[in-house]
Amino acid sequence: MTGTLYVMNPNSSVSVTAGIDDAMAPLRKFGVPISCTTLAEGPPGIENQKQADLVVPPLLAQALTLESKASGYVIACFGDPGLHAMRDQTDLPVLGIQEAAVMTALTMGQRFGVIAILPGSIPRHLRAFGAMGVLGRCAGDRALGLGVAELANPDATVTRMIEVGTRLRDEDGADVLIMGCAGMAQYRNVLQDRLQMPIIEPCQAAAAMALGRIALNWEGF
Amino acid sequence: MTGTLYVMNPNSSVSVTAGIDDAMAPLRKFGVPISCTTLAEGPPGIENQKQADLVVPPLLAQALTLESKASGYVIACFGDPGLHAMRDQTDLPVLGIQEAAVMTALTMGQRFGVIAILPGSIPRHLRAFGAMGVLGRCAGDRALGLGVAELANPDATVTRMIEVGTRLRDEDGADVLIMGCAGMAQYRNVLQDRLQMPIIEPCQAAAAMALGRIALNWEGF
Amino acid sequence: MTGTLYVMNPNSSVSVTAGIDDAMAPLRKFGVPISCTTLAEGPPGIENQKQADLVVPPLLAQALTLESKASGYVIACFGDPGLHAMRDQTDLPVLGIQEAAVMTALTMGQRFGVIAILPGSIPRHLRAFGAMGVLGRCAGDRALGLGVAELANPDATVTRMIEVGTRLRDEDGADVLIMGCAGMAQYRNVLQDRLQMPIIEPCQAAAAMALGRIALNWEGF
Amino acid sequence: MTGTLYVMNPNSSVSVTAGIDDAMAPLRKFGVPISCTTLAEGPPGIENQKQADLVVPPLLAQALTLESKASGYVIACFGDPGLHAMRDQTDLPVLGIQEAAVMTALTMGQRFGVIAILPGSIPRHLRAFGAMGVLGRCAGDRALGLGVAELANPDATVTRMIEVGTRLRDEDGADVLIMGCAGMAQYRNVLQDRLQMPIIEPCQAAAAMALGRIALNWEGF
Amino acid sequence: MTGTLYVMNPNSSVSVTAGIDDAMAPLRKFGVPISCTTLAEGPPGIENQKQADLVVPPLLAQALTLESKASGYVIACFGDPGLHAMRDQTDLPVLGIQEAAVMTALTMGQRFGVIAILPGSIPRHLRAFGAMGVLGRCAGDRALGLGVAELANPDATVTRMIEVGTRLRDEDGADVLIMGCAGMAQYRNVLQDRLQMPIIEPCQAAAAMALGRIALNWEGF
Amino acid sequence: MTGTLYVMNPNSSVSVTAGIDDAMAPLRKFGVPISCTTLAEGPPGIENQKQADLVVPPLLAQALTLESKASGYVIACFGDPGLHAMRDQTDLPVLGIQEAAVMTALTMGQRFGVIAILPGSIPRHLRAFGAMGVLGRCAGDRALGLGVAELANPDATVTRMIEVGTRLRDEDGADVLIMGCAGMAQYRNVLQDRLQMPIIEPCQAAAAMALGRIALNWEGF
Repeated sequence: MTGTLYVMNPNSSVSVTAGIDDAMAPLRKFGVPISCTTLAEGPPGIENQKQADLVVPPLLAQALTLESKASGYVIACFGDPGLHAMRDQTDLPVLGIQEAAVMTALTMGQRFGVIAILPGSIPRHLRAFGAMGVLGRCAGDRALGLGVAELANPDATVTRMIEVGTRLRDEDGADVLIMGCAGMAQYRNVLQDRLQMPIIEPCQAAAAMALGRIALNWEGF
Repeated sequence: MTGTLYVMNPNSSVSVTAGIDDAMAPLRKFGVPISCTTLAEGPPGIENQKQADLVVPPLLAQALTLESKASGYVIACFGDPGLHAMRDQTDLPVLGIQEAAVMTALTMGQRFGVIAILPGSIPRHLRAFGAMGVLGRCAGDRALGLGVAELANPDATVTRMIEVGTRLRDEDGADVLIMGCAGMAQYRNVLQDRLQMPIIEPCQAAAAMALGRIALNWEGF
Repeated sequence: MTGTLYVMNPNSSVSVTAGIDDAMAPLRKFGVPISCTTLAEGPPGIENQKQADLVVPPLLAQALTLESKASGYVIACFGDPGLHAMRDQTDLPVLGIQEAAVMTALTMGQRFGVIAILPGSIPRHLRAFGAMGVLGRCAGDRALGLGVAELANPDATVTRMIEVGTRLRDEDGADVLIMGCAGMAQYRNVLQDRLQMPIIEPCQAAAAMALGRIALNWEGF
Repeated sequence: MTGTLYVMNPNSSVSVTAGIDDAMAPLRKFGVPISCTTLAEGPPGIENQKQADLVVPPLLAQALTLESKASGYVIACFGDPGLHAMRDQTDLPVLGIQEAAVMTALTMGQRFGVIAILPGSIPRHLRAFGAMGVLGRCAGDRALGLGVAELANPDATVTRMIEVGTRLRDEDGADVLIMGCAGMAQYRNVLQDRLQMPIIEPCQAAAAMALGRIALNWEGF
Repeated sequence: MTGTLYVMNPNSSVSVTAGIDDAMAPLRKFGVPISCTTLAEGPPGIENQKQADLVVPPLLAQALTLESKASGYVIACFGDPGLHAMRDQTDLPVLGIQEAAVMTALTMGQRFGVIAILPGSIPRHLRAFGAMGVLGRCAGDRALGLGVAELANPDATVTRMIEVGTRLRDEDGADVLIMGCAGMAQYRNVLQDRLQMPIIEPCQAAAAMALGRIALNWEGF
Repeated sequence: MTGTLYVMNPNSSVSVTAGIDDAMAPLRKFGVPISCTTLAEGPPGIENQKQADLVVPPLLAQALTLESKASGYVIACFGDPGLHAMRDQTDLPVLGIQEAAVMTALTMGQRFGVIAILPGSIPRHLRAFGAMGVLGRCAGDRALGLGVAELANPDATVTRMIEVGTRLRDEDGADVLIMGCAGMAQYRNVLQDRLQMPIIEPCQAAAAMALGRIALNWEGF
């Protein structure tokens, strides 16, 4: 029997976890159990590098408690806190939603745009894209100016996402957009309908890659 | 009912198609039919750019005959002939095995190495990695010095793959290896066992990404 | 006696071929015969990757019929369809107008801008510039929003080229512009006069490089 | 009165801290107090990403206790754990020894080489150099195959450093070398004498930059 | 006794030299004598590559006359004329203000912006950033449209610097700004106050790095 | 009547100039007079950056004396001393042999190798390739260990060029080689015959591009 793919939300907001869980629905038909977790020790939302760094120890500890039942992990925070530490800790597949979203985007358009939550998120993203070696394919990264908590307000969020997405598409030349926060999961469909371009919900992208990895037995490395 | 994922071998070697088909086994549990095709008009193996370019028209034509039953396509030649033309032709997901293998590799190690068939393959690969914008993460690309037909000889092929893979790992610093030809599909497990590092069979990588894309409804773009 | 340099237009528009032929005038004084061909099997204009891929087989066949009289070839479509396949087919020099225009531009300004025909052309260009490894020197690539056929209308085309060229120069920081379609050949002088910056007509750039290559006997490789 | 520059060793080895402290001697003439700390909660040496991530929370907490007396901080582990989190926490200058060593190296030679402790360190370094956007200037990164504790054995360490440094210089083309671990501080002079090329001890590089930053009042950002 | 750090202004404007000298004040507490020189043979300001190239021979000659009293050199023209030639001429540390400003900026923000004097300066800067291998971290380079002499007019200069700096910060996404001319030295504080972001005066950046280099005995290479 | 293309050797060795002049033979059939000059004020060979910088003022002065008879210039030293200064001085086309050789190489193979004279030449080359933005296409740069004067000895030079070229081709993966010194001009044919790969003599590459530029009237910019 296959173990569970744990999609680990490293913040403490159960509403964010619920949104991620809903986004997993289409992938559940593949037959691998997918369970989304919340990190009680985390902040309500991760909005800077200090917050991201501080969740890593409890996240690693939480993963250890799940290891015996797990077939793989997704770290569900755009910023991939603890991604490489998790890979040091376990032989199971570990995907980060930022990394997986970018790799998926690179198969869906020549240049990707990112919808960030806050202006301060952008330098973190750019560091990550540089580390991934794919900066030349980033058309732009623009911020909503909304914190994680504010993303729960659908009307304001969607309006702003359309504005930012339109600029990424029309001014920056993005062919595909990445939603730069797990807290945006519920908005993929509306954004895709409105902007008429592929929109990547990063938790979905990471979970899809993780399921492939689990099926193909790329573990132990 | 979900349509079929067509994994299209653009050469005419049924033995290569059979190897690809075997490699699909672990992914069939996801519930999407996967069918591997052979291109009668193709050469026995694609070993230069002229051969690659010449298969594109019949490959596009073949895909048109499958469209009504399809949920997506994988172009199963390392070189991704006709990848972007196929994306012009259909709204269904189209993955190339080279592109998907690289994107998968980038989540499994910092630098990837490629096992090419012939020295003349390497400039083609490097052009593609440049177009993908990921050249900085390629540790090396080394050739077996064996043509597609010769890959059917297991003993000689495995011996040579181990030699080349060892150099990519130990001299070039690759953390993960990509098998640079669909005709190598049958050798993934032995190579992974012997080299003790993740080995990517590119048809698997592409099919896994395609299945995720199909499930997540990223079509129409 | 020197063979002929064939400048091969892979579309079927004789007016485009005529424009290219006119652009060759200044290079005819070098003493090498230059002959411009049209591809009857091609579409009136090449505007996407599928069209580009489909012209390759008849273009290669056409080149074979010219080989005994040829000293070299230029592929006169911005997108360089079949460039590397042609290099597999013949030992004579083969230049692509996109590649040669970029290499020429890099000697005439620090950053080049590209005037594309349609928005959908831009991702194709960027893939090519990535494959060439020169993306960091591209200031911008902006589309006229005009198809190949529409380029035959001088008034509308020139007006729009000035608008797009001005943005590439003033907003994007281009020091030199490349006209991104062989169908624009007739407009080089007016654009150069109006924008007061170097404008590269890519068929000229490629033919000039080809003539040098022929003179210097860099064939056979 | 100027506050103290704290050079914070995030491992628990007082001998490593002592080596760093000795390396600070030439910089003490600048008149800013320099104090080197040890992190009791840290491991004896940091050799993988998990260890690096786990020291960040106690390191941040330690810095908070020093803040009122501080004029700046250096994070003295090659890997810069917590660097950006520290920058979120304080307005004082914060330098990482990896980042500062690289920036210093780029003024001392066209290509830098890195002497790593273990093979597993190299992917971490490459991620960091990618995030810094300077990967094109890295000639090579080679491992001693010695853990942090083993660096305390001078004879074996120096012999191995000479071997690795020689390869970086002669095979990889490095013009300047960076010692890739704070635990190597004591060996800079011998290595520089033996290899006759500039050797960067990263704690020195970072402290020197920090002192400049403090003097020039680049704080508060 | 430590020799003098010579900060060499390669233009003939004593007012520019005076501005540089003032900017050195905070670094004089480190105890190394700092002396700023003017180049009588230079033009009043260096505004193109020809002017930059022509100052190199007299600048090298001037440095030879200072060598016996020197501990190091800074070339105080943004463009670093003669930087590598000086490194060929002497074993003492030689820093260029452009190179040092960039390396310092890379520790203070993810992307740097540059305030240039004239539009024609920008291609020169981009060539240099390309040679440094850091182009991917340049957010933008925008010109004041003021020559070196005009920088002496504080009101017009500050107004224009604020405008240009604001665009670099808000449109281009720069996290840190570099003043792209030694003649701007007097404006660092006002610019930093007004834009509320780190502003790098490049002579300071270079002198600070030079002082560290002198203290750490990285000479002779 | 067309003016003369001046191929300016910035060193004082008439034998080097004679070798360049011989290399021009195949290009003289184009009908533009080509005249090769020697710089009396130059050193016998340019082997470091200081020497390169010092020839720029007399080279610029020499060009001024030729301006009225000129149709264009080639700067015939691999290192392109004064290239951009010359472009500031004249509206005529100015090509540098390094730049033109690289741009030509990029149309003849995916990765180029460079045969340098001395190890100290390599960092200069890499700075230039970085400024050109093409570093990702350089397979390697290896030195003969021979100064400019020693190149006049054919036997030793050819033997060593074959050795170095073989390593660039077989170990580094170069598809095309650039001879990294104007003093190597006489050896192109023998090297091409022996290595069976395209060899670029950079003075030829630059003169060919200059002739095209002159014919196409790309001057005045």
